[in-house]
Amino acid sequence: MVLEVAEIQIRAGEQQAFEAALSRGVQTVISQSKGYRGYRLERGIESPQRYLLLIEWDTLENHTVDFRQSPSFAQWRAIVGPYFVEPPRVEHFEQASASPR
Amino acid sequence: MVLEVAEIQIRAGEQQAFEAALSRGVQTVISQSKGYRGYRLERGIESPQRYLLLIEWDTLENHTVDFRQSPSFAQWRAIVGPYFVEPPRVEHFEQASASPR
Repeated sequence: MVLEVAEIQIRAGEQQAFEAALSRGVQTVISQSKGYRGYRLERGIESPQRYLLLIEWDTLENHTVDFRQSPSFAQWRAIVGPYFVEPPRVEHFEQASASPR
Repeated sequence: MVLEVAEIQIRAGEQQAFEAALSRGVQTVISQSKGYRGYRLERGIESPQRYLLLIEWDTLENHTVDFRQSPSFAQWRAIVGPYFVEPPRVEHFEQASASPR
């Protein structure tokens, strides 16, 4: 399992609209993508225009190839992209350890 | 519930020792702290010396006051600090939305 972490900066005053668009984008586009496992959207406390979008995929390629190189990527960006101040910084991680759920 | 996100950069070649120390530090120190709920340690795929430590707390103050201003903070740093290249960047987030677990 791989964790995609996207750092997102949105325009001031658009939190509510962005959060609604993001939920819709996950539901209608990302959750249909191969290898998608789940997501969390986290809003910054120190910086309320800053978000972390955490998405779990079965493999790295499920995100970088199956999703990013499919028409779904443009559909997703059409929904959430208008709120971005700049393109998100995206990185991938694999779990080293964790507490039991 | 509040998510603490610490970005950690460690020295080359010390992943295994750092990961063991971190698990020990969480188990012996952080997990005893008031309001602690759980953690995940994520190792960078693009940058294997880069980690995200995600810790869930009941409230912001459980981290910033109850933990940070207690003797536990020095105990924790004594265990994991030797591996850090620089002091971690720490931010806090609150959940905007998520898929069901």
